[in-house]
Parts: sequence; C-alpha cells; structure tokens
Amino acid sequence: MKLVSYRESQDGAAQARYGAVANGDSIHDLTTAQAPTLRMALSSEGIEGIAARADAMAKQARGIPLGSVVLLPPIPDPDKILCVGLNYFLHAKEAGMDVPARPSIFVRFGSSVVGHDNPVQHPGISEQFDFEAELAVVIGRRAYRVSEADALDYVAGYSCLAENSVRDWQRHSNQATPGKNFVGSGAFGPWLVTPDEAGPVESMMVTGRLNGEQVQGDSAANMIFSVAQTISYLSTFTELLPGDVISTGTPSGVGFSRKPPLYLRPGDVFEVDISGVGLLRNPVAQAN
Amino acid sequence: MKLVSYRESQDGAAQARYGAVANGDSIHDLTTAQAPTLRMALSSEGIEGIAARADAMAKQARGIPLGSVVLLPPIPDPDKILCVGLNYFLHAKEAGMDVPARPSIFVRFGSSVVGHDNPVQHPGISEQFDFEAELAVVIGRRAYRVSEADALDYVAGYSCLAENSVRDWQRHSNQATPGKNFVGSGAFGPWLVTPDEAGPVESMMVTGRLNGEQVQGDSAANMIFSVAQTISYLSTFTELLPGDVISTGTPSGVGFSRKPPLYLRPGDVFEVDISGVGLLRNPVAQAN
Repeated sequence: MKLVSYRESQDGAAQARYGAVANGDSIHDLTTAQAPTLRMALSSEGIEGIAARADAMAKQARGIPLGSVVLLPPIPDPDKILCVGLNYFLHAKEAGMDVPARPSIFVRFGSSVVGHDNPVQHPGISEQFDFEAELAVVIGRRAYRVSEADALDYVAGYSCLAENSVRDWQRHSNQATPGKNFVGSGAFGPWLVTPDEAGPVESMMVTGRLNGEQVQGDSAANMIFSVAQTISYLSTFTELLPGDVISTGTPSGVGFSRKPPLYLRPGDVFEVDISGVGLLRNPVAQAN
Repeated sequence: MKLVSYRESQDGAAQARYGAVANGDSIHDLTTAQAPTLRMALSSEGIEGIAARADAMAKQARGIPLGSVVLLPPIPDPDKILCVGLNYFLHAKEAGMDVPARPSIFVRFGSSVVGHDNPVQHPGISEQFDFEAELAVVIGRRAYRVSEADALDYVAGYSCLAENSVRDWQRHSNQATPGKNFVGSGAFGPWLVTPDEAGPVESMMVTGRLNGEQVQGDSAANMIFSVAQTISYLSTFTELLPGDVISTGTPSGVGFSRKPPLYLRPGDVFEVDISGVGLLRNPVAQAN
C-alpha cells in the first residue's frame, strides 16, 4: 500500500487530506473527521486499520487523479523528525569523519520539508546549499525501549527524504540544527510505502540525481546503523510516536566533498530515487 | 501577568487547562473551546487577548487554589523547544570550549520536560545525569527573519527550565540530541511571566540549587548571545511560532565540570530560581 497526503488545490488554506494510491495514478481518499490526518489515523487505528479502509474504498469508489492534486509530505505534521548523520561508510570517509560508534542524531522540524514536485527553497543567504538523498522511515505505533529484534514491527512504511543542508550554517557551531532547518529546504515524499510492498531495506538502492545525472548511490545495506538498530537506540531515550520520521543518513557523493564543490542552485532539479520506495523530485527555487 | 497550564487532578487523562495566577496563590481558568491550550490562545488572540480575558475573569470569579492543581509545563505542547548551548562565558570555559562565534543550537522535545513539582525522571541507564538551570523564553507571535532590534516584541514571556543532561549520551556522537531528550529528564515552569512583570533579562539572576545549596548562579546579563540576538538568529532559518520555547543556556557550576563530578540522584531536589520570573522545584525520581 502507498499512502499520500495532499491538497486538492494549490491554495495553502485548502484542507490537507490523505489517501491510498491505486494503480500508481489515482488516490482513494481516506480522510475522516475522526482521523483528519495520516498521523492521526496511524495513531488511532494503525496501519492495519488504514489498509482495511483502503481496501473497502478501492472496491466502491473511483479515485482522484494523482496528477490533479498537490502532494504534501506523507506526514505533514510529524511530532518529530530525527535524522542520522554519517550513516554510510563512504559518506563518513568523504566527510573526513571516523566511523561513529553510535548514531549521530539531529532534528529537523516539519517546516523544513516540502512535498513531492514542490519547489525546495534555496536560502539566498548561503552559497553552500547541498543535496542529501536519504531513506526515511515512518513510525506506525508508539515505540519506547524496544529491542533491535522487535524494532521493525513499529515501522508503518518507507519514503524518500531530500535532507538538504546549508553547509556553512550547519557548521556555525558544533550542532547541526541551523543548517538543517531552513524553511522548505528539504523534501519528503512522494508517499509512504508499507514494508510488505517496499521489501527489505537491505535490498534498496538509494540514488541521488542532480539535473538527471546520478550524484549519489549506494545500497541501504551499507548503512552503519541499520533501521532496526536506529529505532532501538532512539527508543531508549525518547518515545517514538505514530507518524514520527527517521531519516537514515545519506550515501557518499554530497556536494561539499567534491572538488570543486557542487551546490544546488535555483533552477536545478534534485531527485531521490529509492528502489521499492519511489521517486521524489523537486525543483529548486529561490526562497522568497 | 503569570500564566500556568495545569490539570485539576493527578489523572494524566484529565484535561490540560490554563489560566492566570492571581495573588500568587489562585488560578483564574481561561480555557475555552476555541483556545483549549495556552499555545493555541497565543496563536489565536495573542498575549494581549489573553490578558484582557484574565482581567475580566479576575473581577468576576473566585480562583482555583494554586496548591490544588497539578502544574504542567506552561506550554505543554510546544511546536519546538530550541536550546542554546555554551551561552555563558564561565560555562564555556568550564566545559573546556572556546567562546562560540555563533549560537550552538540543539532541540529538546516536549516529552523531555515535566512541570513544576513533578518528579524529573532519572534515566537509570546512566550515572551522569547533570543539572542545568536556564532562563526560558516563550514566543508570543510568529517570528520569521526579525531583526535583533525588533526581536523582543515577539516574546510572550519568561519561565525557568531545568535543561538537565545525560552527559554520556550527550557525547555519544558530535550531536547532543540523545543526552537532551530522555523522557521527563528536564523541567519547565512554574509559569510564564510576561515581560512587563519580569523586567529586563539583564537584571535577572539565574540560580541553580541542589538540595537547597546553590550550585549555579550568574546574571543573565552574562549571556554570550542575548535573547534578542538568539531570536533574530533562529528566525533567520526557521519560523518561530506562538508557544515555541527557547532555552537560553546554563551558567557555570554544572556537575560534570566539578572535581569530583556532582550528578543528580533519585531523592535529590533541584531548583531553578530566576529573579523576576519564579522558582521551579523538582524532586528527582528513578524512571520506571
């Protein structure tokens, strides 16, 4: 099952809705008064409840054309987005960092990401706006102090995340927060794919493409900390809630490590393509 | 004006309410269906609207005894809590760090703090649970790209925050997130005090007391980055929303810098006392 959040028009005041994608080209709306957002649906009925409603809906309703809506991040209002830094061996090496002994964890706010096809906002204040293609994990039910063996039971699904970074602001201090949280600087989507459909993480290829040319690519099997290890680690100190997002780190090939450096510019198009999950494509626009 | 969020009983399922404190010992409830939380009231009517309702209520209603309720963090559901690290000269020195050129910013989740008088949770997993007394700033209206000169216009009020840290987990990697986000490890309260009543930040003394003995103390005038500078900096990359919290860093005297180190243990009581703002007191309990 693929789930999207969306608006029926460009009007930012239009209601955010969610639904299941059928045949790759239409949406069966699942929004209800009791569960007005996908996050709240995960919280109240779980992914199984959503799947049951999606099945029933597919039999009785014609879908809304996927191309007619504005996609939002699959979870537009997450309680938290936790990001893992330096989580691929070759990326740690290109960044000049040791392989970390424990996951490096920073936070993005929901306001820092846009949905599929929406322009990511180039912060005019910096020339060092870099791309990062990442696999995102969406939590399906509350996970607190869960073991690595059980951790994947708490996953609702997977998505793509362009965890774009403003490198000079990321390095203003020892904490990455500012460079990771410019409004609309990243992207998240196009949809959430459930694990049964996505297949095992170890089989996924994570690819970043800039203006059609591959700039990043690695197997998710090359993560330093697996999805299960990361969920277990995070759940030791915080409660992971339905709709929480974990971005699992970027493969090598980012712009700052290149000679000369390669940064995003207005007019560029960046894609995150993850086999079994989907293709997230965003043009880059100058921030207002 | 002092504003509190509270529950009328220990039952965690009881509705979270908010109100104004009168005579230091009673609460005039201000909860409405339109503005069910203080954050939402700040968002919809602003601090001026809340003050007008509090004035009207004080004339017509008897208050609820302050001692009869369970205090919550003044904003129990902030969109974000941004924390400034190393923001006092003497603390940067005791931590063995250079005076930073720009604010060091990390994030706490709302789940990491409890209200006044409630037990902070000692994470049994670590012996290095340290205290940090801090001044907290609550944002009153959306602040995006505001100048330092205008920044204080966006402040709804001040509070105390025990920004307690699990030092070994804070140092698991180069990012502080894990050590700052153990569930219930910090505290926030007892109330929000509006700037007219709190007076200028430069006049505030920030004191930390462990079991009645002063362990931290400095003038807020000794912050490396002022509240106005910090708001302006943060608002460059993210939208500060009504109810967002900024914890402004801790004075020197924290436990890890002492010889021998001094850490929080179950049974201890830690107080954050800020002149003009209030006294936040919390016992330490072993986490379940």
